[in-house]
Amino acid sequence: MQWYFVAALLTVLTSSQGILTTLSQSNGKYKYDYATVPFLAEVFKLAVSCVFLWRECRTSPSVRMTTDWKSVRLYPIPSIIYLVHNNVQFATLVYVDTSTYQIMGNLKIVTTGILFRLFLRRKLSNLQWMAIVLLAVGTTTSQVKGCGEASCDSLFSAPIQGYALGILSACMSALAGVYTEFLMKKNNDSLYWQNVQLYTFGVIFNMARLVFDDFRGGFENGPWWQRIFNGYSVTTWFVVLNLGSTGLLVSWLMKYADNIVKVYSTSMAMLLTMVLSVYLFTFKPTLQLFLGIIICMMSLHMYFAPPNTLVDIPLPVKATPESLKEVAVVE
Amino acid sequence: MQWYFVAALLTVLTSSQGILTTLSQSNGKYKYDYATVPFLAEVFKLAVSCVFLWRECRTSPSVRMTTDWKSVRLYPIPSIIYLVHNNVQFATLVYVDTSTYQIMGNLKIVTTGILFRLFLRRKLSNLQWMAIVLLAVGTTTSQVKGCGEASCDSLFSAPIQGYALGILSACMSALAGVYTEFLMKKNNDSLYWQNVQLYTFGVIFNMARLVFDDFRGGFENGPWWQRIFNGYSVTTWFVVLNLGSTGLLVSWLMKYADNIVKVYSTSMAMLLTMVLSVYLFTFKPTLQLFLGIIICMMSLHMYFAPPNTLVDIPLPVKATPESLKEVAVVE
Repeated sequence: MQWYFVAALLTVLTSSQGILTTLSQSNGKYKYDYATVPFLAEVFKLAVSCVFLWRECRTSPSVRMTTDWKSVRLYPIPSIIYLVHNNVQFATLVYVDTSTYQIMGNLKIVTTGILFRLFLRRKLSNLQWMAIVLLAVGTTTSQVKGCGEASCDSLFSAPIQGYALGILSACMSALAGVYTEFLMKKNNDSLYWQNVQLYTFGVIFNMARLVFDDFRGGFENGPWWQRIFNGYSVTTWFVVLNLGSTGLLVSWLMKYADNIVKVYSTSMAMLLTMVLSVYLFTFKPTLQLFLGIIICMMSLHMYFAPPNTLVDIPLPVKATPESLKEVAVVE
Repeated sequence: MQWYFVAALLTVLTSSQGILTTLSQSNGKYKYDYATVPFLAEVFKLAVSCVFLWRECRTSPSVRMTTDWKSVRLYPIPSIIYLVHNNVQFATLVYVDTSTYQIMGNLKIVTTGILFRLFLRRKLSNLQWMAIVLLAVGTTTSQVKGCGEASCDSLFSAPIQGYALGILSACMSALAGVYTEFLMKKNNDSLYWQNVQLYTFGVIFNMARLVFDDFRGGFENGPWWQRIFNGYSVTTWFVVLNLGSTGLLVSWLMKYADNIVKVYSTSMAMLLTMVLSVYLFTFKPTLQLFLGIIICMMSLHMYFAPPNTLVDIPLPVKATPESLKEVAVVE
């Protein structure tokens, strides 16, 4: 399977996620407990990975699976990072409004590039760095509050703690991605075995969250397992399946492609969601969305196109077999 | 003189033009007849060019000056294009509002690139094409109507004639620039002699406009030469001198650099004006201005930076003097 095919699929699924989530609401509210969605998605991913691992074990006798504690103990770390990230996110929203938070969220594109360079030691050309910055600028452009919208940007008037936490949040988010890539690529273990480890801890951490919510709520509505499917509709199940599938695709990309591919894929998904929303929810198309799309497309091309199709490079003078023959004759 | 120095000077002067013009108004209105400003600027440019030509003739005996009618008759053409352009502009504003017109004006960046390629046969790399599109996108981004602004963009709801005329206007504007570059570069004539021809026709056409305005107004306020300096303040004189100086710099760039340099220079001037306006006229800085500046800076770097600083190019294997010696020894 080619990475760009997986990336395109991830774009489509991530974009449907936004649409499906909106469709699963009734009158702008969730009838179900939203915290159950990521939990069930983790269960789905674990189940799928187990099936695939079992099939792999049956067909090939030598499936690579590192099972010593030194390796396994690295797998809960992404879940821990996401947990901390959630809390940083919560703290950030004390200081800034949602729209400013959303704008600052685009910073994670740039921080991913930086951590990708620092931790994974991947070299990027100057043009690729510019492409990454442009991707962040493009997604931000599409989100600029247009004229006629209710609340105005308070982007330049947030307290300093808001910016600091926003940057920290962008770094945590990038760290989770970069760390997962490190984990998936550090050995030749079967992808499904790595997934099983990753999602086992994912299930545990998400379950812990549900239990924690129960304790905080004083078990008013009973324990979580008794009301887990309360308010679920067909659409809600699609939300769960979709979230699970995007997770599996991200895992694949982390092993066989990289974080930058994922960042492009999810950024394109954001723009696609906005375009689809124009048709589905009759939003008005804005100039800034149009500009954002052009910028992101340019960025995509700058990052992935082979350099020799972008600039006119003098062809290196190569020793052809013919010229070597001539030298031999001269000798 | 280096072209980037001239381009930087052009940016600063073009940007002061906007500020000075605003400062020359009283209560948002012109106390003087604005049509006299370009006329006097043409007179200033003609006078300066005459002085420089005279000095050049005194110091060097062989100043290149083609004086036959076949060459001279090409010089009124830019003035004619500008005249037609002014009327197209007027017609466009019947169908679209000023802010939509301003947004569409950024199209001239792209049309200049296209005519530059078609008429002047200049090759641009794909990256340079992308840079030109990004420059247009960047200047447009900075002009996106923010939230809280009075009138909303009617950009997507203008009649089709509005778009057609907007595109025509962008083409005329590009044509004037590209034609002037062709004119300045077609032979090795002295720049000052070329300027004298260009500005003589400029003075004539601007004078014709003043006479035409008089006829249309039925000579209510007397002929134009009797009231030419009415309402002039020191600032108005600065506006004239500034407009004249930018014209001379553009001439220089057309001969020794090119249209794309001019387009970058004036686009940067637009952004500089907006930044200065934030300080001088206490406008609020907007997110879109900030994003526009980043996009334009990226575009500038993409267009002008040497390709080998942008992408990692395998160094061409060159025959060094040492390796040639070795070959000689082997022989």
